[in-house]
Amino acid sequence: MSASAGAGDGATAPFRVGLLGHGTVGGAFDVLLGERADEIERFNGRRPVISGVLTRTQGDFREILAGADLVVELMGGLEPAREYLLATMRAGKDVVSANKQLLSQHGEELFETARAHGVRLRFEAAVAGAVPVVRVLEESLSATPIERIHGIVNGTTNFILTEMTAGASYAEALAQAQRSGYAEADPSDDVSGRDAAAKMAILARLAFGAPVHLDDVAYEGIEHLDGDDIQFARELGLGLKLIGTAERLHGGISVRVYPAFLYSGHPLASVVGPFNAVTVESEAITEITLSGPGAGGRHTASAVLGDVVSVMTGGARPPAPPLALPLIDDVDSAFYLYLDVADHPGVLAAVTRVLGEWRVSIRSVVQRGLGENARLVMVTHPVSTASMRAAAERLAAFDFVRSMPRTIRVIEEEYT
Amino acid sequence: MSASAGAGDGATAPFRVGLLGHGTVGGAFDVLLGERADEIERFNGRRPVISGVLTRTQGDFREILAGADLVVELMGGLEPAREYLLATMRAGKDVVSANKQLLSQHGEELFETARAHGVRLRFEAAVAGAVPVVRVLEESLSATPIERIHGIVNGTTNFILTEMTAGASYAEALAQAQRSGYAEADPSDDVSGRDAAAKMAILARLAFGAPVHLDDVAYEGIEHLDGDDIQFARELGLGLKLIGTAERLHGGISVRVYPAFLYSGHPLASVVGPFNAVTVESEAITEITLSGPGAGGRHTASAVLGDVVSVMTGGARPPAPPLALPLIDDVDSAFYLYLDVADHPGVLAAVTRVLGEWRVSIRSVVQRGLGENARLVMVTHPVSTASMRAAAERLAAFDFVRSMPRTIRVIEEEYT
Repeated sequence: MSASAGAGDGATAPFRVGLLGHGTVGGAFDVLLGERADEIERFNGRRPVISGVLTRTQGDFREILAGADLVVELMGGLEPAREYLLATMRAGKDVVSANKQLLSQHGEELFETARAHGVRLRFEAAVAGAVPVVRVLEESLSATPIERIHGIVNGTTNFILTEMTAGASYAEALAQAQRSGYAEADPSDDVSGRDAAAKMAILARLAFGAPVHLDDVAYEGIEHLDGDDIQFARELGLGLKLIGTAERLHGGISVRVYPAFLYSGHPLASVVGPFNAVTVESEAITEITLSGPGAGGRHTASAVLGDVVSVMTGGARPPAPPLALPLIDDVDSAFYLYLDVADHPGVLAAVTRVLGEWRVSIRSVVQRGLGENARLVMVTHPVSTASMRAAAERLAAFDFVRSMPRTIRVIEEEYT
Repeated sequence: MSASAGAGDGATAPFRVGLLGHGTVGGAFDVLLGERADEIERFNGRRPVISGVLTRTQGDFREILAGADLVVELMGGLEPAREYLLATMRAGKDVVSANKQLLSQHGEELFETARAHGVRLRFEAAVAGAVPVVRVLEESLSATPIERIHGIVNGTTNFILTEMTAGASYAEALAQAQRSGYAEADPSDDVSGRDAAAKMAILARLAFGAPVHLDDVAYEGIEHLDGDDIQFARELGLGLKLIGTAERLHGGISVRVYPAFLYSGHPLASVVGPFNAVTVESEAITEITLSGPGAGGRHTASAVLGDVVSVMTGGARPPAPPLALPLIDDVDSAFYLYLDVADHPGVLAAVTRVLGEWRVSIRSVVQRGLGENARLVMVTHPVSTASMRAAAERLAAFDFVRSMPRTIRVIEEEYT
């Protein structure tokens, strides 16, 4: 069943786990495995033990590999994590990893190696912390054709946006996230949307079978958002989330991450704080939503240990060879458009004329302030991103537009 | 890996599925398997085919068993479903079932037979339709000690309660559920709470490892609920759901189903219509919530096919032998208390004196109407069910109490 057959010493031999990395998640995994070893042995007949640990300052990878039935990689980063995972699989041993950057940039190489050597590569913890979306996708993938995955897959930005909705500025919310342990000292991977983009690349690969590299994912972050946007949006009945989407579209797939306003009835609108939630849509299942804490060492460790148990019980195979599906770039969306304008006669007429030229149709408009302090906020009907960008650039050229127009996508209420 | 090794004709032999039952779910499963066979073959190397079908009027079980690698039981009912599942497993073949009544009443016999013969018994579709709570519990069970499962596991009653909250009477809401295909002509299994109780028994077994028979689950249904209760509760900021709970308590476990009022901030309060949602709580994962459509032939068929694929890919083992854990009967809860009283001087004093004698402490009170049409509605602080029942019986004996007092549990807002 497992490549650990070489141990050859019966059902009661311990299941030896080599651990690469002993930081926040690695340390939590080590503790959790110790706490749960009795129960796992009771269920599976073998007791998991940590047979070796590699840190920056101690341990030898070759020795750990030789003494392990399975290797857990919790080092993070591309190298040497990639090299160690490949070497483990080439030695015919299963691997578990929580490394989203590695999987989203070298996933096909890892999957191909797993296939070639008939070993398992598990990575539940790479996507949404304790929320078991990888397992659900892997196991339901064959049973139902997935149309779309839609979700909040970064707890740091969701926490920041929740704080901003309560009135905090971006800077205050970020500082609060750092104090609460939800954001790192250098938060750029989270707030730029890159972390969410890596996770959506992995989910898209699982859902659609097509290779999706991190570079294929269009993403925007939340650094440029303004408290004003959130206050205005609230007047329009909208809430703000960083949304990852992977969907079938025009015979291909689109994978993207951007801040988006949601109508209050949207199922993702009620996900607050550092939580994650992912909705999987398919004709046969309608939609399934999974939600839970998105980060935290012990949550992530729990997902890693679930993968280890899954390997021990013989579940899951390497992913199938990739399918070729074109990636779709330009996706229609409704937009929120924020214009800081001098309130001169003819301004609204000029703005609407430009929007009309680019086929941007207005759904609702709020004007606030007078004279030199006027702001014009609109929500459009769905339009291509290229059209909206071109219109915004044209508007920026007007003298009476006093700062760069801001555009944020709006997700229509699709659920009834 | 699988007991199908007897086929002995290489990786490209079809994977033969014997199907018992061809009603709503069985027919939908047959169609869905045909639609997805190509994709399943691409992923798993073997193509699933229906090798035989047993209905009330055609097919022979022994022939179907002999020609199948796996048997899917979608007949429902206790016999002959039980006999067929046992015979299949004794023949060394894996089984998939959606039969919650059977699993909640003969689960230990089925699990023991699966263990004894080293075969897999999968039943994702028995609990929450397309929502993969069984899979998540089975695979995370060893990784994290579960403290509590809490959820809405019957779509029919949730639909009826949603309609009642919108103003319909119980009879109107039930008729609407029947017209919409969410309730059967005889809805008693759903509205009595028995269907939800069977599902909670199965979930409790998975979560805690202890055998839980349907008879061990205390359940109440929704037939006795009154539109007045819902209107009053709304004034108190509460919504009404049929809630199943399985939790560790005082060194044992408690499994129960009852209608309960939830504060509007509770995660289950926003689950409306025929949807199901289950929250799993554990120290290591905090809480994970899974939600989706709770019923429907195609949804259930999708869960059954997921189980078939899971067997094909070698996942999951028979459950471990049962643990002994005492079942706890009396659980503290806050209560809503509805009294139809003649509004004479001294009535409130008499009521509060009785409540005080039984240590029922009042949290809030609403009095409505005057004179002969007065109604007194209260929400209590948590108190034992036995105390609340005794107090309600004592109150019923007063001359000024004109109909049987109604009590409904209230779930405190535990999530912040």
